[in-house]
Amino acid sequence: MQYSYMTRLFCPKCGRNYDPEQIHQLCTCGSPLLVDYDYEELKKVWTKESLAARSSNIWRYHELLPVRKEENAVTMGEGGTPILPVSKMGEKYGISHLFMKDEGLIPTGSFKARGAAVGLSKAKELGVKKFAMPTNGNAGAAWSLYAARAGLEANVVMPVDAPVTTRKECAASGARLWLVNGLISDAGKMVGELVGKKGYYDASTLKEPYRIEGKKTMGLEIAEQFNWEVPDVILYPTGGGVGLIGIYKAMVELQKLGWISSDKIPRLVAVQADGCAPIVKAWEEGKQESEFWNNSKTGAFGINVPKAIGDFLVLDAIYQTKGCAVSVSEEAIQLAQLDVASKEGLFICPEGAAVFAAAQKLREEQWIKEDDTVVLLNTGQGIKYADDLEAEVPVLEPGDSLV
Amino acid sequence: MQYSYMTRLFCPKCGRNYDPEQIHQLCTCGSPLLVDYDYEELKKVWTKESLAARSSNIWRYHELLPVRKEENAVTMGEGGTPILPVSKMGEKYGISHLFMKDEGLIPTGSFKARGAAVGLSKAKELGVKKFAMPTNGNAGAAWSLYAARAGLEANVVMPVDAPVTTRKECAASGARLWLVNGLISDAGKMVGELVGKKGYYDASTLKEPYRIEGKKTMGLEIAEQFNWEVPDVILYPTGGGVGLIGIYKAMVELQKLGWISSDKIPRLVAVQADGCAPIVKAWEEGKQESEFWNNSKTGAFGINVPKAIGDFLVLDAIYQTKGCAVSVSEEAIQLAQLDVASKEGLFICPEGAAVFAAAQKLREEQWIKEDDTVVLLNTGQGIKYADDLEAEVPVLEPGDSLV
Repeated sequence: MQYSYMTRLFCPKCGRNYDPEQIHQLCTCGSPLLVDYDYEELKKVWTKESLAARSSNIWRYHELLPVRKEENAVTMGEGGTPILPVSKMGEKYGISHLFMKDEGLIPTGSFKARGAAVGLSKAKELGVKKFAMPTNGNAGAAWSLYAARAGLEANVVMPVDAPVTTRKECAASGARLWLVNGLISDAGKMVGELVGKKGYYDASTLKEPYRIEGKKTMGLEIAEQFNWEVPDVILYPTGGGVGLIGIYKAMVELQKLGWISSDKIPRLVAVQADGCAPIVKAWEEGKQESEFWNNSKTGAFGINVPKAIGDFLVLDAIYQTKGCAVSVSEEAIQLAQLDVASKEGLFICPEGAAVFAAAQKLREEQWIKEDDTVVLLNTGQGIKYADDLEAEVPVLEPGDSLV
Repeated sequence: MQYSYMTRLFCPKCGRNYDPEQIHQLCTCGSPLLVDYDYEELKKVWTKESLAARSSNIWRYHELLPVRKEENAVTMGEGGTPILPVSKMGEKYGISHLFMKDEGLIPTGSFKARGAAVGLSKAKELGVKKFAMPTNGNAGAAWSLYAARAGLEANVVMPVDAPVTTRKECAASGARLWLVNGLISDAGKMVGELVGKKGYYDASTLKEPYRIEGKKTMGLEIAEQFNWEVPDVILYPTGGGVGLIGIYKAMVELQKLGWISSDKIPRLVAVQADGCAPIVKAWEEGKQESEFWNNSKTGAFGINVPKAIGDFLVLDAIYQTKGCAVSVSEEAIQLAQLDVASKEGLFICPEGAAVFAAAQKLREEQWIKEDDTVVLLNTGQGIKYADDLEAEVPVLEPGDSLV
């Protein structure tokens, strides 16, 4: 048995192959690269029953991950996040089987840990020493902290408006950090120059091929947690869209292995904010790629991405699964966040709240049916954004009475 | 098979018994009450091998928890937190087998979720509708959010200096919240009046018997994660001390079941801050109880408890296991927090950092031996205290160069 059954990197646009034992970034045609595995061999040597004896973190799926040697896995116990019934919200929305996968229960407090764990493990295995990346906050925090554990140097550029907690995480990790008075697209340009001139590894979203493999584990977990009977609909807050691409890749791979039925794949929904909805616009127009969204703005900071490099892969996943794309208002996001905290006890992030609001909207539009099994991805902890929440609380002196 | 094998409540001080099917708070003698189980019957009907097929949350140990009916378990997936090697810190301290159990990876971001999950599940089962409690922040956040999920009304009083994030969590949950310009002991007095006059359930630390059962699961998990060969030393940041009492109770119960050897129990260490060290003082003086610590102060806010109601149980656990109590300076706490983030990638809370500093001190004093297997409990996420951390970061304009 091998630890990983990765066979090659390939370009989903032009089909070109790359040797996975060497460092690669984008394809020469400009497209992100994807990882391929030996599914035929895996069908012979790997069973889903073998998972029972493994620990619950993402490395339980190591055969379908790109890290060659177990000792190169940089881990802080990421993965195995719970899928929780959210039945009071389900009742409110009129959805009988409503669940939330809680990606707040993961190192660094957001789902970005999955991409960072696999991305940095592979970077370390390939001999990378220094990398650079732009971030809306959570990815930078995750990559900085995993870099500290791996012993790599992180160079991170973040919009000044990104959640302050993520800035503190980067700083505590010892990363080299800059803030930019602009958007992640501005940060991306600065990183581009840094990478070009210094020769750092470019860890920008989808400019390295491996974070998607980490994000893929969300899809593997969902399938396993539903005992290999996949849900009908999965809603995902979409900025760069790597998680949605990853979940789709997971489902296709599980079909190739015969672990889930080839007759059913969950309908994937890309959720965006009204103030930044390039994927929604492209989907509504039936296009294969999105256009840059000018003057983008949303309090759900992680999905403030005006143009994603993997937009064509996100749209393809939506089309292939008969999914859709939908945007929600800032008011709906804020309302959902408080609603979920006070009804379900789950203090979720604004991006996760956007997904709840989207479920309500799609149910109202009858796109989601009453008896659909629906999984909502909460991508991180509400406490990371606690600054954004007002709380007027009376202050008393010792000895004052509450009665 | 029963879901729970609880038999009675009993007073560890005067030995009096109480019916566990009714609401009880303290013993008439003033002592906290503890939960007893039918260990003889459990030895016949329950095996540790049966755990393999169960999910990783705390309810995998339901036979040793006080909730009678599975449907009363209020859960958000708490438990199953990872034990991670922290080998770079181990190298620095000269401890060969150093591990950290990460209680940041749990709903509400701190280990208080365990006590809240079991405490509120049992309160709900007993028919409680409203409760009140004082808190240093994290417990109030956990109990408020679990109360929202359970459908109970939370009344919480918190020092104004407690971490602001925990205030936001309480507010988001819809709890009734007051701040007091004082310490948790001042908050406790105000809760006492509220409870007395309104008849609310008193959910103050150890004034209800069940949160300790939730905290106990940390000990059960440690034993299971070390494959029932318990570590030599466990260090725990000690405010109210419920976790330490719980871990000790877990070890004794596992010995009664024959799941761990009766020859070895981990030496338990209560870690406090120099600015609030009543347990350390009592232990150094060989006493059975602590005295109120005047003008207590520490940035590790969760352990700013000048007098714990369960102090005699904490001290007993230390004496019985040949453990010790040790305090550390604010400087050592802050240094350890940044050291652990930048070397191990783990952004831990100040209370967790105090435990690292204590391990270093005890190793220097030779109390911890080089080849001891040592587990450090990080009780919550660093991001909850992100406000306390300075981060000077350059702010650039779009188009500026980083090279």
